[in-house]
This record gives sequence, structure tokens and C-alpha cells, in this order.
Amino acid sequence: MPPVKRPRSSPAREVEILETVLRLVAHDGYDAVTMDAVAAAAHASKATLYRRWPSKADMIVDAVRRHIGTVAVPVPTGTLRGDLIQVLSQVAEQLTSDDLALQLIAPAHHDPELMKALEIKVREPARIVMRILLERAVAQGELTSLSEPDLPHDVAMPMLLDALLWGRPVDADLVAHIVDRVLLPLLEAWSTVG
Amino acid sequence: MPPVKRPRSSPAREVEILETVLRLVAHDGYDAVTMDAVAAAAHASKATLYRRWPSKADMIVDAVRRHIGTVAVPVPTGTLRGDLIQVLSQVAEQLTSDDLALQLIAPAHHDPELMKALEIKVREPARIVMRILLERAVAQGELTSLSEPDLPHDVAMPMLLDALLWGRPVDADLVAHIVDRVLLPLLEAWSTVG
Repeated sequence: MPPVKRPRSSPAREVEILETVLRLVAHDGYDAVTMDAVAAAAHASKATLYRRWPSKADMIVDAVRRHIGTVAVPVPTGTLRGDLIQVLSQVAEQLTSDDLALQLIAPAHHDPELMKALEIKVREPARIVMRILLERAVAQGELTSLSEPDLPHDVAMPMLLDALLWGRPVDADLVAHIVDRVLLPLLEAWSTVG
Repeated sequence: MPPVKRPRSSPAREVEILETVLRLVAHDGYDAVTMDAVAAAAHASKATLYRRWPSKADMIVDAVRRHIGTVAVPVPTGTLRGDLIQVLSQVAEQLTSDDLALQLIAPAHHDPELMKALEIKVREPARIVMRILLERAVAQGELTSLSEPDLPHDVAMPMLLDALLWGRPVDADLVAHIVDRVLLPLLEAWSTVG
């Protein structure tokens, strides 16, 4: 059989386009990047872009997510503390890998599509990973119950983001501080209080 | 005695200048506002401006602080819960009074003077008010101890800011949620654990 000609919407082509998008955003900022500019720089038609991404926001968030990586469910470390540290360390690394997170915060506030794409593609996966960790700890008897499975995420992530915003180190010390002084005492308190 | 001619650096004149500054920042954004532009719009010499404010950052943060108000030590409500809700409600109101807080976040990241001015003039006062509240609760026996007097602030403020950033309501429900589900359980846990 003759080799099938790869369509231009192949995964490799997508990666190529996303790399172009990332370069444009890093250089010009979110607001200045347009579908036209991406089409020109990536030598793609706008139709090709819109076939893959419903909006500019969607395309740019995909590019950023590909660049900063996704938060993975950590291999069990044997303790809830170890697991929490692993997942928050991943987020800390994402936030500090470059200025992209900060660059999208201001535009997201006046661009509901960008906000939604960030929510679905960046924030929600981290929330789910945190929930999986905690459910694992309940299943293994390390936590007695879990009345608010999202609250640990909703407390920890803002503390990481806040440190980033205020120019403070988003590092292993901060992660350990959040886990030891905030998350574990809270999880303990919630277990008792129900 | 003849009336003393008021110097042009009078408080009234300062208010006039800060109102001009605020109008320029709201219209053009932090980055675009220069000392020259303020001098021209406020009919003041740059020397006058620099006599009062060491930097553009300092001047703009003063203008914003004057506009959003300062966080006051709440009149004792009789309970720590009531006091915490009062102070966080004040911060929530500041954050949502307009887009100014958000407008300064991105520029602060590449302008250390702005970051420092925000830290000293906006963040630090809120931190101090929180600490006063908690010390009052210790003095009145509602809390047994206070090993980390700044941690309640450092947990609560990011949660408010985070809601603002993600376009969620920064309202009385959020404040009550933070106080009841996070701060009070944490204060309880820290009291026991030390």
C-alpha cells in the first residue's frame, strides 16, 4: 500500500502551530495576538486554525498548557503529606516556568472565553488531581472523611498564585509551609468536625 | 493678622493631584501614565510632584489607596467570627470597588517600586488589622494562643484575590465561607497543636 499522505491537521502540524502561537504570545502578549497573525506566522489558513480551535483563547490556552505541562496524579509516596507536596510542587513549577501564567491573568478578566479556557484546561485538572489524592487518603484510612473535597485545592492554589503575584519565592519551602501549616491541620479539623 | 497664603503643597492640592492621577490611571492604565502626563493634567510642576512622591509608583498607589479606602480595625462585634467577617468584608469591598486592583497586578510584576508601594501601603495595613483582631481574641480568651499571627491573613487574602482573578463573586457568601470553613477551623487547630 502506498503511504497515506498526512493531512495538514496531523498532531505534528498541531504542535508546530502551537509552538508558533506560544512564540507570538510570549513576544507580543495575549491581547496583541490575532488569528490572522497566527495564520500568517504558522503558514496555515484561518480555516485550518478554526477547524482545530473554536477561538483564539482556546488555541492560546492549549499552547500554554502544552508548554507548562499538565499536573499528573503523583505516584503514591506512602503518605498524604508526601502526595500533597508532590502535586503542589508540580503546580509551583508550572507557575514559575515562565511569565505566561501572569501574562494571561489580566486579559482573562476582560475576556470570558480566555477565562473559561483557563478554568477548564488549567485549573480544573489540578483540582481533579487534588481530589484523587484526597480520596486515596480516605480509601487508605489516612483521612476519616472528606466533607469538602475541593476546599484543599481552593485554599492551596490561591496561596501559590498569590506568592507569584507578589514576587515571593514559589518554592519547596512555600509548598511545605502550605501543606504542614494549612492543609494538614485543615484536613484534620474537617475530619473531626465533619 | 493677614491670612497666610496656602502653599501649593496643601492637603487640598494633594487631593486634587491624586484625583487627576486616578483619572489618568483608570483611563490609560498604569504603564502609560508618566510623571510628565500627571504634571500636565494637574497643572503642577514635576518638582512639586517629586517633592511629595518619590516615584510614580508611590504616587499612583497613594491615589488608589485614597480611592478604595483603608482597612480599619473593626469595632468589636463580640466574637472573633464577627470581627473576622467585618475585616474581610472591607477587603472584599476594596477589591471589587473597581478594576484598579486588577489593573495594578500585572504591571507590579515588572515594576519593583510599584510592588513595594502596594505591599507597604495596601497589603501591610490589612495584615496589621488582622493581627490586631487576633490579638484581641487572645486577650479576651477566645483563642488560647497565636503561634503564627500572620497566617490567617496569608490564607484569607489570596482566597479573596483568587476569586476576583477568576471572575467569581467576592461577596458576603465567600467571606463567610472563608471564615467558617477555613480560618476558624485553622485557628482552632493551631491553638491545640501550638
